[in-house]
Amino acid sequence: MGKILIFGHKNPDTDSIMSALLMEKFDKNLGFDVEAVRLGSINKETKFVLDYLGIEAPRLIERVENDQEVVLVDHNEFTQSVDNIENAKITCVVDHHRICDFKTAEPLYYRAEPLGCTATIMYKKFIEENMEFGKEEAMLMLSAIISDTLLFKSPTCTKEDKSVAEKLAKIADIDVDKYGLDMLKAGTDLSDLTADELIKLDAKEVMLNDVKAQIAQVNTASIPEMMKRKEELEEAIKNTIAERELDIFVLAITDIIESNSQAIVLGNRADLVEKSYDVKLEDNTAFLPGIVSRKKQIIPVLTKNA
Amino acid sequence: MGKILIFGHKNPDTDSIMSALLMEKFDKNLGFDVEAVRLGSINKETKFVLDYLGIEAPRLIERVENDQEVVLVDHNEFTQSVDNIENAKITCVVDHHRICDFKTAEPLYYRAEPLGCTATIMYKKFIEENMEFGKEEAMLMLSAIISDTLLFKSPTCTKEDKSVAEKLAKIADIDVDKYGLDMLKAGTDLSDLTADELIKLDAKEVMLNDVKAQIAQVNTASIPEMMKRKEELEEAIKNTIAERELDIFVLAITDIIESNSQAIVLGNRADLVEKSYDVKLEDNTAFLPGIVSRKKQIIPVLTKNA
Repeated sequence: MGKILIFGHKNPDTDSIMSALLMEKFDKNLGFDVEAVRLGSINKETKFVLDYLGIEAPRLIERVENDQEVVLVDHNEFTQSVDNIENAKITCVVDHHRICDFKTAEPLYYRAEPLGCTATIMYKKFIEENMEFGKEEAMLMLSAIISDTLLFKSPTCTKEDKSVAEKLAKIADIDVDKYGLDMLKAGTDLSDLTADELIKLDAKEVMLNDVKAQIAQVNTASIPEMMKRKEELEEAIKNTIAERELDIFVLAITDIIESNSQAIVLGNRADLVEKSYDVKLEDNTAFLPGIVSRKKQIIPVLTKNA
Repeated sequence: MGKILIFGHKNPDTDSIMSALLMEKFDKNLGFDVEAVRLGSINKETKFVLDYLGIEAPRLIERVENDQEVVLVDHNEFTQSVDNIENAKITCVVDHHRICDFKTAEPLYYRAEPLGCTATIMYKKFIEENMEFGKEEAMLMLSAIISDTLLFKSPTCTKEDKSVAEKLAKIADIDVDKYGLDMLKAGTDLSDLTADELIKLDAKEVMLNDVKAQIAQVNTASIPEMMKRKEELEEAIKNTIAERELDIFVLAITDIIESNSQAIVLGNRADLVEKSYDVKLEDNTAFLPGIVSRKKQIIPVLTKNA
């Protein structure tokens, strides 16, 4: 029996990478033979954290063998997981999402909590196990919380995420606001991505009742800067709509400083955004004040009007 | 918003009733407005425990309204849960089974551990929360562990179940072996049940890949005694197969003293049992030495061959 592999979702974000690294440390401390891996490229925000700490990114994998023992962090839905996950042996899941499209043949350890971030649950696991940890682990946890909650501004952020982050900032002895903003800004440097790469960077395909939709999100420090690329983004979106036979594509360009989004919306059901937010799309775009969370403020709202 | 309802699976066993009562106590201590309920008749083993403690059985329910908030203990599969569970709001699950046929629209609290008994997890929750408890709670936990592990003899029994049970026995100040055997034996007095009631007493409907199955189990102190009713049991099984359109029905008659089972198997996929245990069904029945756990020794083995 080889190592147990630990990984977050495809198109990994900072929480997926940090939580895999944290789980690796946790399991190693308990004497398990484990390895954190990843299912996609490291984004620039995550790279900022890894560089800051001087640590290596986990190894990239794309597929697991039959009966490979695996631990999932920050996801459970098979469509978001590694290829051949159906035939792997999932022994453990730590997550903060809805449960869907997931099953096992045998009992397992499963821990989900409706918190802003998987790493907050990892913090709790270390504490419950009386497992000591240092600055590096604190920074892994803190970075994931900052990322998933957009520096505590997202409506997905709970009191518990905030209070854990405060404890972690003390352990790491760091100015959270300064570090957090630098980290989030590092993630917004998307100048070297093509328009197609941009709209695929963090896109999720979902059914809004009977409406086939893709909701993509990119973080930015300047909406006008990103909107300079509107024409090529629209072109890429149109191609995706044709290719995936979508009814609607929403690209939310989210200002992480001011906590607003500019939406570019295309497709024969673009009216959904107009109805949902009482706005008029002009030239396929509308400003959505205060909207930053796809999970809490976009998918459920569009679903209600679909 | 009314009370949050807490319940175990249909055809409740001792763990399902005890864990619902324990979760009710736990949540009430945290200030939640909750009520433990049950999804079926109390069996004689469970009645023995409730009578011993002088407490009432939870109220029976069969269906929940849309958007009812619910907590599931000792199960997660919708086929084993309350009617209309698809439209309920599941806020919490505490369980020790595989995850299958389960989904939610929103993040939730989910805790599963591969232990012998849900009540062992409930014990850990009380301890982690620094929540004090007395003899009654200890007896609820201990009875559930004894029931699910057949007095620690089942292969589902882990070191942790055993060690928790030892602590509980001290708190409850009780002779576990004597109490446990009395309790298990109380559950084997099934003489007043019809054959149909017998096969439904502890039946679980499960998908073995594409094979629709019911796996029922009855505990006995004497397999030959139970096999005297083979003919009427087969009749009841045939009716259930027709009614539920099953591919296979397995009734495991489990000798709790010797730790073996006699299986009665009907349905067009009865061959699954032959393949899985390398036995030949004679007159629809086969002896399965050492097989006592549906969860560990029946469902996964049949699934592998389905």
